[in-house]
Amino acid sequence: MIVVMKQEATETDVKQMVKRIESLGLKAHVIVGTERTVIAAVGDDRKTHKESLESGPGVAEVLPILAPYKVASLELKREPTTVRAGKFVCGNGTIGVIAGPCSVETEEQILATAKAVKAAGATALRGGAFKPRTSPYSFQGLKEDGLKMLATAREATGLAVVTEVVATEDVALVARYADVLQVGARNMQNYRLLEAVGATDRPVLLKRGPSATIEELLLAAEYILNAGNPNVMLCERGIRTFETHTRFTLPLATVVYLHAKTHLPVVVDPSHGTGHTYLVGQMAAASVAAGADGLILEVHPDPASALSDGYQSMNFKQFEETMTLCRRVAEAVGKKM
Amino acid sequence: MIVVMKQEATETDVKQMVKRIESLGLKAHVIVGTERTVIAAVGDDRKTHKESLESGPGVAEVLPILAPYKVASLELKREPTTVRAGKFVCGNGTIGVIAGPCSVETEEQILATAKAVKAAGATALRGGAFKPRTSPYSFQGLKEDGLKMLATAREATGLAVVTEVVATEDVALVARYADVLQVGARNMQNYRLLEAVGATDRPVLLKRGPSATIEELLLAAEYILNAGNPNVMLCERGIRTFETHTRFTLPLATVVYLHAKTHLPVVVDPSHGTGHTYLVGQMAAASVAAGADGLILEVHPDPASALSDGYQSMNFKQFEETMTLCRRVAEAVGKKM
Amino acid sequence: MIVVMKQEATETDVKQMVKRIESLGLKAHVIVGTERTVIAAVGDDRKTHKESLESGPGVAEVLPILAPYKVASLELKREPTTVRAGKFVCGNGTIGVIAGPCSVETEEQILATAKAVKAAGATALRGGAFKPRTSPYSFQGLKEDGLKMLATAREATGLAVVTEVVATEDVALVARYADVLQVGARNMQNYRLLEAVGATDRPVLLKRGPSATIEELLLAAEYILNAGNPNVMLCERGIRTFETHTRFTLPLATVVYLHAKTHLPVVVDPSHGTGHTYLVGQMAAASVAAGADGLILEVHPDPASALSDGYQSMNFKQFEETMTLCRRVAEAVGKKM
Amino acid sequence: MIVVMKQEATETDVKQMVKRIESLGLKAHVIVGTERTVIAAVGDDRKTHKESLESGPGVAEVLPILAPYKVASLELKREPTTVRAGKFVCGNGTIGVIAGPCSVETEEQILATAKAVKAAGATALRGGAFKPRTSPYSFQGLKEDGLKMLATAREATGLAVVTEVVATEDVALVARYADVLQVGARNMQNYRLLEAVGATDRPVLLKRGPSATIEELLLAAEYILNAGNPNVMLCERGIRTFETHTRFTLPLATVVYLHAKTHLPVVVDPSHGTGHTYLVGQMAAASVAAGADGLILEVHPDPASALSDGYQSMNFKQFEETMTLCRRVAEAVGKKM
Repeated sequence: MIVVMKQEATETDVKQMVKRIESLGLKAHVIVGTERTVIAAVGDDRKTHKESLESGPGVAEVLPILAPYKVASLELKREPTTVRAGKFVCGNGTIGVIAGPCSVETEEQILATAKAVKAAGATALRGGAFKPRTSPYSFQGLKEDGLKMLATAREATGLAVVTEVVATEDVALVARYADVLQVGARNMQNYRLLEAVGATDRPVLLKRGPSATIEELLLAAEYILNAGNPNVMLCERGIRTFETHTRFTLPLATVVYLHAKTHLPVVVDPSHGTGHTYLVGQMAAASVAAGADGLILEVHPDPASALSDGYQSMNFKQFEETMTLCRRVAEAVGKKM
Repeated sequence: MIVVMKQEATETDVKQMVKRIESLGLKAHVIVGTERTVIAAVGDDRKTHKESLESGPGVAEVLPILAPYKVASLELKREPTTVRAGKFVCGNGTIGVIAGPCSVETEEQILATAKAVKAAGATALRGGAFKPRTSPYSFQGLKEDGLKMLATAREATGLAVVTEVVATEDVALVARYADVLQVGARNMQNYRLLEAVGATDRPVLLKRGPSATIEELLLAAEYILNAGNPNVMLCERGIRTFETHTRFTLPLATVVYLHAKTHLPVVVDPSHGTGHTYLVGQMAAASVAAGADGLILEVHPDPASALSDGYQSMNFKQFEETMTLCRRVAEAVGKKM
Repeated sequence: MIVVMKQEATETDVKQMVKRIESLGLKAHVIVGTERTVIAAVGDDRKTHKESLESGPGVAEVLPILAPYKVASLELKREPTTVRAGKFVCGNGTIGVIAGPCSVETEEQILATAKAVKAAGATALRGGAFKPRTSPYSFQGLKEDGLKMLATAREATGLAVVTEVVATEDVALVARYADVLQVGARNMQNYRLLEAVGATDRPVLLKRGPSATIEELLLAAEYILNAGNPNVMLCERGIRTFETHTRFTLPLATVVYLHAKTHLPVVVDPSHGTGHTYLVGQMAAASVAAGADGLILEVHPDPASALSDGYQSMNFKQFEETMTLCRRVAEAVGKKM
Repeated sequence: MIVVMKQEATETDVKQMVKRIESLGLKAHVIVGTERTVIAAVGDDRKTHKESLESGPGVAEVLPILAPYKVASLELKREPTTVRAGKFVCGNGTIGVIAGPCSVETEEQILATAKAVKAAGATALRGGAFKPRTSPYSFQGLKEDGLKMLATAREATGLAVVTEVVATEDVALVARYADVLQVGARNMQNYRLLEAVGATDRPVLLKRGPSATIEELLLAAEYILNAGNPNVMLCERGIRTFETHTRFTLPLATVVYLHAKTHLPVVVDPSHGTGHTYLVGQMAAASVAAGADGLILEVHPDPASALSDGYQSMNFKQFEETMTLCRRVAEAVGKKM
């Protein structure tokens, strides 16, 4: 950590700061500049409260040097992590495709979708049984009935089942039916839930919150990893910006950046990331070109009658075309899908 | 709801949309423009999925007319809600001041703080016992021990206790000690938690998520109100923007806007909203001038040694000066504090 | 335009609004809803001040139906515009690549770069002679000397010259040397400058401002088109968001969205859009996959010694690799480059 | 400047960086940490390209220590600057109020407004004669005719005239009529314009761009100061964020923050900052409580018929009430108005 002192900081301020740094088990190097003094605090500062230095007298700013996450870091584990769940493989040259409706609505709907997305090349089925909805008056999901329908669809197709869990008290239930547990964007910093899914043996798809920094995303992953579960996929699903022509802004540089920081695979969700069906296909292709290890896509037999997210869901034909396009791009960048 | 059709929409598209609108129990008015057709869907559209219209063929855009929240709405209840907890009063001309440390650390710390903030005019004591922390390696709070210390401080001072609850499984425990339950920004859309605090008889302080829209905030409040708890205070604590010179951006127009939309009282948190002690006092005064019904402020006996948030906490003297300033401004705008 | 009246609006308010709408040459349709009245104003509302309706008594909101831009609109001209400047072709299946240093520094630098980028497949050379710099103390460009060096490089390689113009008084001078005039992000709403470049016969590369909406971008293009210059390329170069791990956030959905709204070709600038050399190559590939009609890339013989933007510039080898990658992706999406 | 090296940086990388730092006239201090090496570059680094270090081999990050602006800095000049133009005084305990219509429309309109705002306590009159408008089809202002009307209103009332200048070629003309030159938000980084107003003897009101950082704002001021004009007022007028319930987000902490960084007075524009008349009055009061040295407010005899910005303009009565409220708050915080 680098502690920048204010121009008007006194010698006593500097001495106090040195003492405090040393009391944290770090070494202090004082550098007297022409206009200011800076103090370098050297050592493993991950457990140090940056804040506890910031509040010291005469301090202008504290600049951290080390990233605060550890187990997720590429500095700890150099080789990329590959996440597997049955035939679903995500990472290290293979692009895992998760497709299906926003919500499980009926057995027919989920079965038809499972068959269609499998035929087009998906290896996992998504579908919400527990739905976190902005309004208390919106459809909240079929709950355990929905989970059973997902399991039926798995039996029929061999696809891995990916579904969201919204509360610690549901983790055991959902884990009984699901192959991959999804933690939604709204729950990215629900730490109890992160610890609970971290205690299962199911891979986790962790979605980035719409205003989470990458550091916060990696620290959320760290909660899961720290609880003993090494199989975490990070999912970029769009951030909240001033833009209104898309539902969220999908920042694909996240994919490239994460690959430079972490060994965990990165999945992109262009359905939520754009919020409009006609934008999804090309943004899926762009995600693959940017290096995504996986895609998660909303597909519905009849989007116009979907109970949720119809405006961003593809029908079977659109999904098939998207898969064809993405497969060509995957090949161009040296991956298989 | 207003459905705007695309320029190239066919007559069949329009007819289908009319049918769909009618199937939702709404009345359709078709207006054929020079360049486009728009269809007005008239009726109570709160339970209608805006989305289920958006995905129709030939639709360019769907523009909602009614706000999706209801119980929170000023259109339902004209007179402002006043929230009370012991001597703490918030709303309708009285500014409730909640002050205390970010985390409860020791009994001495919380007792000393309680006495100091009471002397300066606060009517409630804040203090975190369950701390949601970005990093799994940070101090996570004293849990039940912290709650007990808060109760001790209440007995000593008569201040109402405001403390955060982070999980449904803790609600009963926290409600046993606390006078007001705080739902933190990270949990604003943790709907299970909202329902759980909605089922208690404790007033709730609901913090706005850093990227939540006002509509999302009011819908989160609606979850609590809908569960039977009418005592909700909304808290503006800063949003995430491109600005980096403050920890968050504190948009005080929220206060004025909310007063035009809802009867619920509005509290402002300038400590988190700015993230730097030297900015807090004047922003507290500005919050009062903007019409805030309450303030929540971080105060610590020795901010420089705080286990969390020291850089944005005031010491006792700074708090006292802030109270003096705010009281003068409150008087200027015709309120008491 | 749809005028939504407040719940408490009186009949007189409605009548006044109808009158006002008619006085603007539009037709008014009144729809009395169960909770509110809305009035549809039908006709060409592009020249109407949305604002002049919003300020009427009893008005809750005014929702525009038509986009405010016209000449740029796909509704006016269905076939995509292709912009050409010598061998540089941008649009309609051909990806134009503009490459070169941030600033022209010396004749050797620009010549060497021109030759290298041409060999790798670029068709245009970029290089700043007039540099708008955030600080008055930064290098401001070589001005006319820089323009001459660019012209020399064009003679040597046949590449089209793309360079920025920052002030109306420089337009004639820059147009004498340049094949394409660039309007930078900071000047996107410098309307005099837009009119001035609109009055030349040079194609214009118009960069999106970092907080400009797409509508504002298209209206800025409209200024140029309206002044008589049909050859406008729109350039996405990243927007300002809360993200700090990249210099800007590069929202590639812009490309797909713009193709659905306008006939003008869309260029992407992944150098500014990411701000770090190691992110540029894959984001260039992603841009191509998203459907970009052109790329603009910063290339420098020795980025580490560049006078500006070295941290986001590629060296010749990196550029060559990027071109190889992008060409493969272009082929995968059915384009040539 | 602090140069943080990558974990994998070699000794050669470090040596090269030291050499480069020294070649820039700075002193290098190497600190070998347990996980990384950091190098402190000590000296006046304002003219150093942070970038030219960032692009060096093995560099992870470069952290600047000194702010890049100088003349604007409080470190250079401790006592606050007071800007005066006739009876208009802004700074050091006196709040200058600038009020008037968005656009000058007719002589009657501007005269009536000038008289009304003067009666209510304003000391300067605003009014746009050259209007930068988002759409080429919107009203563009009365130009010199408008300036003449402003001058007439000054003669009649003694108010100082504040009006926008949008192009270097208009500076002389506008300066002939205006007492204060306004540089609008869209032109905050139009450096030629900044230099041109910097060469006049007129005070300048410099508006913050909607996505400008504070550092960029202060560097824009630095262009004016550096050109020889010491009378610059900084104006916060709202930033672009994800919020849509207000036109912009008005971050009042800017006022407090700027007072800690610069001696220049800070003006707030709650009309643009909120975009809705009913929000303006209380946000003006909040601005005063936050410490604003001035206010700029849109006032129109009949906002409903204004040619621009009617939805955010106050009528005379609303302005008078706002002034009464603000005056009380000013007194509460120890200022006069």
